[in-house]
Amino acid sequence: MSTGVHAAWLPPAAFRALGSRRVLVHGDGPLVDTVFDEVAAACAEHGGRARRTGARPPTSADAPVDGVAVGSADDPVDPVFDLVFALRGTGPLPAPTVAAAASRAEAAGAAELGDGLGDEGFLLAVGAGATVVLADAPAGLLYGLFHVVRLGAAAFDGARPPRAYRPALRRRMLDHWDNVAVHPVMGQVERGYAGGSIFWRDGAARRDLPRLRAYGRLLAASGVNAVSVNNVNVHAPEARLLTDRLGDVAEIARVLRRYGIRVHLSVTFAAPVVLGGLSTADPLDQGVRDWWAATTRRVYERIPDFGGYVVKADSEGQPGPFTYGRSHAEGANLLAEALAPTDGVVHWRAFVYNHRQDWRDRTIDRARAAHDHFAPLDGRFRDNVILQVKFGPMDFQVREPVSPVIGAMPATRLAVELQVTQEYTGQQRHVCYLGPWWSEVLRFAPWGPGGATVADVAAGPAGAGGGLVAVSNVGDDPFWTGHPLAQANLYAFGRFAWDPGLDPLAVLDEWIDLTFPVSATGDPDLVRDTLHDVMDDSWQTYERYTAPLGVGFMVRPGNHYGPDVDGYEYTRWGTYHFADRDGVGVDRTRATGTGFTGQYPPPWSEVYEARERCPDELLLFFHHVPYGHVLHSGATVIQHIYDTHFAGVERVDAMRRRWKLLAGVIDPAVYERVVERLDEQWRCAVQWRDQINAYFFRKSGVPDAHGRRIH
Amino acid sequence: MSTGVHAAWLPPAAFRALGSRRVLVHGDGPLVDTVFDEVAAACAEHGGRARRTGARPPTSADAPVDGVAVGSADDPVDPVFDLVFALRGTGPLPAPTVAAAASRAEAAGAAELGDGLGDEGFLLAVGAGATVVLADAPAGLLYGLFHVVRLGAAAFDGARPPRAYRPALRRRMLDHWDNVAVHPVMGQVERGYAGGSIFWRDGAARRDLPRLRAYGRLLAASGVNAVSVNNVNVHAPEARLLTDRLGDVAEIARVLRRYGIRVHLSVTFAAPVVLGGLSTADPLDQGVRDWWAATTRRVYERIPDFGGYVVKADSEGQPGPFTYGRSHAEGANLLAEALAPTDGVVHWRAFVYNHRQDWRDRTIDRARAAHDHFAPLDGRFRDNVILQVKFGPMDFQVREPVSPVIGAMPATRLAVELQVTQEYTGQQRHVCYLGPWWSEVLRFAPWGPGGATVADVAAGPAGAGGGLVAVSNVGDDPFWTGHPLAQANLYAFGRFAWDPGLDPLAVLDEWIDLTFPVSATGDPDLVRDTLHDVMDDSWQTYERYTAPLGVGFMVRPGNHYGPDVDGYEYTRWGTYHFADRDGVGVDRTRATGTGFTGQYPPPWSEVYEARERCPDELLLFFHHVPYGHVLHSGATVIQHIYDTHFAGVERVDAMRRRWKLLAGVIDPAVYERVVERLDEQWRCAVQWRDQINAYFFRKSGVPDAHGRRIH
Repeated sequence: MSTGVHAAWLPPAAFRALGSRRVLVHGDGPLVDTVFDEVAAACAEHGGRARRTGARPPTSADAPVDGVAVGSADDPVDPVFDLVFALRGTGPLPAPTVAAAASRAEAAGAAELGDGLGDEGFLLAVGAGATVVLADAPAGLLYGLFHVVRLGAAAFDGARPPRAYRPALRRRMLDHWDNVAVHPVMGQVERGYAGGSIFWRDGAARRDLPRLRAYGRLLAASGVNAVSVNNVNVHAPEARLLTDRLGDVAEIARVLRRYGIRVHLSVTFAAPVVLGGLSTADPLDQGVRDWWAATTRRVYERIPDFGGYVVKADSEGQPGPFTYGRSHAEGANLLAEALAPTDGVVHWRAFVYNHRQDWRDRTIDRARAAHDHFAPLDGRFRDNVILQVKFGPMDFQVREPVSPVIGAMPATRLAVELQVTQEYTGQQRHVCYLGPWWSEVLRFAPWGPGGATVADVAAGPAGAGGGLVAVSNVGDDPFWTGHPLAQANLYAFGRFAWDPGLDPLAVLDEWIDLTFPVSATGDPDLVRDTLHDVMDDSWQTYERYTAPLGVGFMVRPGNHYGPDVDGYEYTRWGTYHFADRDGVGVDRTRATGTGFTGQYPPPWSEVYEARERCPDELLLFFHHVPYGHVLHSGATVIQHIYDTHFAGVERVDAMRRRWKLLAGVIDPAVYERVVERLDEQWRCAVQWRDQINAYFFRKSGVPDAHGRRIH
Repeated sequence: MSTGVHAAWLPPAAFRALGSRRVLVHGDGPLVDTVFDEVAAACAEHGGRARRTGARPPTSADAPVDGVAVGSADDPVDPVFDLVFALRGTGPLPAPTVAAAASRAEAAGAAELGDGLGDEGFLLAVGAGATVVLADAPAGLLYGLFHVVRLGAAAFDGARPPRAYRPALRRRMLDHWDNVAVHPVMGQVERGYAGGSIFWRDGAARRDLPRLRAYGRLLAASGVNAVSVNNVNVHAPEARLLTDRLGDVAEIARVLRRYGIRVHLSVTFAAPVVLGGLSTADPLDQGVRDWWAATTRRVYERIPDFGGYVVKADSEGQPGPFTYGRSHAEGANLLAEALAPTDGVVHWRAFVYNHRQDWRDRTIDRARAAHDHFAPLDGRFRDNVILQVKFGPMDFQVREPVSPVIGAMPATRLAVELQVTQEYTGQQRHVCYLGPWWSEVLRFAPWGPGGATVADVAAGPAGAGGGLVAVSNVGDDPFWTGHPLAQANLYAFGRFAWDPGLDPLAVLDEWIDLTFPVSATGDPDLVRDTLHDVMDDSWQTYERYTAPLGVGFMVRPGNHYGPDVDGYEYTRWGTYHFADRDGVGVDRTRATGTGFTGQYPPPWSEVYEARERCPDELLLFFHHVPYGHVLHSGATVIQHIYDTHFAGVERVDAMRRRWKLLAGVIDPAVYERVVERLDEQWRCAVQWRDQINAYFFRKSGVPDAHGRRIH
């Protein structure tokens, strides 16, 4: 499938092991068709043979192709297969050897199979000359297919005990902050750093179906199963996607459905007024309820597997239930009621804070806002409401504590929201592999070490949690993500959503091996080692040369790129560091500060409250300390600032030199794009270093212990 | 003339004294027609009688109107007049009494008349029952008319010796930074705070001819005689005004010509490339020279009194001669050569500086740039080049020294550029009457007290100087200028351009008396005293609550409104304060700083160099001093900062309270608009006070001596 864009983690070579085998796909339905189409294309490319069987004739328009045979169960063209994808319950398998292999796999995997594989799970068994993938539902086969792709040759090596794979999180969603019409300030994609939108252009649907299909395929291969197709800030043209422009959404849904992806829409809470012509959007008004019910019914008539609504209400100027004196539970339940006849959900964002704060009023603390607003509403949301909570209390900073909301609402379905797009982490001009950061967040235990984790909350009891959501980093850039290496974040998000327990560096290697396959290079170790070296600690590197010790937000207001230490210090957005000639940091303790530490249960409420127990990396988030305060690391705060900023830039310089080893080794287009971005990263990192260091030197008057140059 | 917009300083009542008299207008030509039309309209309004005579039949389409008689010299309808406007040399005056009065005036004013009244001068004589205005050119009669309007009843009171009035500056120009197409960042009017453009809207000419005419009339009544109709940053749609959209310019010229105003165009130096399709815009290329010559010829065919070109070259991203390795003299002379067959001129802006500076390099000083670039070029510009120099070395700050360029180019025609639009002085949301500031600048003596002044340089020898130019503050706002009181700045600019020696507070009163005439109110003293009180020291008030002691530029980057102390401190725009825990200010001395003081001749080179001689209000512009440095005023720098910021806000509060006295007294629309703006001014002034004080308190650690609250 050539779309004129980069193949990302699905280049043809990634299908070599699979495509050079004899493969049987057994089952019915559109998703099985997709699996077969993938297999058939791979076999055509790499010389294998693909065969399709099932209870019904296949619907695929692509088969037969060269080297591919399609038949039915009673037409055994080739009884021997190296690889079998079989949907259980479809009917007898077409050849004795295959049937036997499948039976062996089922028997051996009985313990793994348990009560079944669910909607998306699959069983993988390797041995006795055949690799078998079994699933109970078509989507399971699809995920099994991409699992085999990831394994490559290892999927056919020796034997391995049968193992069932099921997603830890049922809901794995990407939110696109894409505008239909170009916004005068925010552009086509809000916080997008990869060109235009893949869905929309200049007020209209793009209808670039090959690209959409390629996108769905990449997402399925990473594990994502839901997409929201428009910005959470819903302006007039986007509002109409819900009604008279619904056809545009249906077309996207039609393409992505073939990869097991359901489509969601961001809607405006004011829709009954702006679209319906009603005089109110009050959630308790019967006319409003009727309007949402009728509108939702029409959506499902057009898109039967529609995923539901995403809502940003009463936040940063968006309308919401507060206008009518109603709670956010009442607001969310209004939409949930309309969705109740379906299996769609409301993703109700918890990103509500006062963005007209007064920096002079030290009692206001933006970090407190989501918990203050939502914790009291626990248990008051309908079952089909998912409260979508940003992972931290602020806004996707390179470092912040985990949001206390995540541990505060046991009777609510919570989704945890990450940001794949690098709004505050280098905007896809900087290499910043976020896997380690997300892993840290997902493994964090809100009630203390050893207890349930953030990932457990997102998974919910019996898989009923709200799942993992992230803001997409994809645009119409030829590399999808602007920075080619930012693809790794998109990939890692899907993988963590499927299995939050994965090792982030193993995921990185997985991505490297898929994206830069052996055949394309002379020296596989060189490529993998270089990419690994450039990327593995890039998040910590970014942290080192930007805002120190968790204080955050020292960015240029508005565009959020590059340093501006005081940029938000005196604004209405409420994110301050209070640096003076004596010290720096925000006192969020109960004893003397804003009391934010009290939003955590023990032990964190105590750990964060006590300056001596607070982790170094969050010290300035929770405490205002003198520049001479000694960290657990042994360094003073001011010397830590200098040291990390010099070290961060040195690391970027090393990354840049290391990358140059790949000249002539990898795709020149990728190579050159990364060279150019690393140059910008270095320039910007030097600015960060020099501005942060100069700022704190001018304030503190403390010279660098090592006598390095500070301006 | 009703245009649906505010009458500003030409309300009908301002014409009462004139319009209730018997008035003769004697002379020929379109500008005399304009004078007569004004007189006739005033007489129609106020019961007087207007009569027109001349050597040729009048061309006015408006006459005759009720109460107005039009005749020729040999048709003496009414031999007695209270007021006579006579163009000398037109032919015999129509009645013996009038002829006698005019002769008496000429005889008595012989000394004043000298070699004649020039293109724009007039002689005013009052006595023996008649007021006589004589001129040698039609424009002189027009300015005489508005002078009589300004005088009001005093023009008819008693007797006064004949006096000739000639403009001190021949060139009195307003530059509109209006875009034809709305710029995505800068909008319709760059740095405009009064709505859209009066010339352009959404890519097209507005063709609001009544409004254009009203505008021309206001400008003529203030003294302005030239207008540039588009932004100095010339984008693609504006570039085409020079060629295929020239008709739009011609239409504006046609309307404004009736008020003695010539039209100029901002052009892009790259025009031969972007419009002419040439491969170069090199000023020494013959094809380029031919293109400019031919293009200019076509402009004059269409607009015979076209004023010339305005050019911003090699500045903030605009193209210029540096691209071709040519000097700015070569660049300017290229256009001058094309204009040589006409009496048009090139306004070549000296606003050239490196806007990609590195804040870490303390040897770069934006203040030096214009002098470094242009002083070496003195004498190398053609006679029809006017080098247009911003009054200060930076960029229209509320306080900066006078630009050293003004004293450095005796062999060049210099125009001094002011900014009527309040980019850095409150953006027409704050009351900031700039008359006192401009007066200070214009009276400044670049070679020391008692020597020639800035105004003398702009006037030039024998009136050949470049004159005074300002960036307009006008838009399509109903009050013209957003803030109704900002009209005073527009008015004062014209008045100072005519006579830089005027007392700025007298000009303010003149404006108040015209704009808020007695008849409209019950208590003239209340209105005048209140407006005077609110406005007279408003510039110093603005200075008090914003950046202290001449340091400047502590504004939000980009929009330049509101405080951001470090906003430009680490940027590439090059405007820094270098505040640290010990002190603040920019060392621009020769001894230890950037050497900028050396660009001044003595005594200023010595005055500014010496910390103890430098005027307080410019101290931080020239010196980096400790917070404890004691000013001439006796206060320390840090205490001065606190004191002025508290005082500035208190003054705004007093202005606000004082203004409320006018409730029910003046036009409610004006009253309410000003109330709303004063509220915003107060809010913003409090922000300035609190941020500046907090910033310097956090840095210095010095408490306020009076214990006031600092955040």
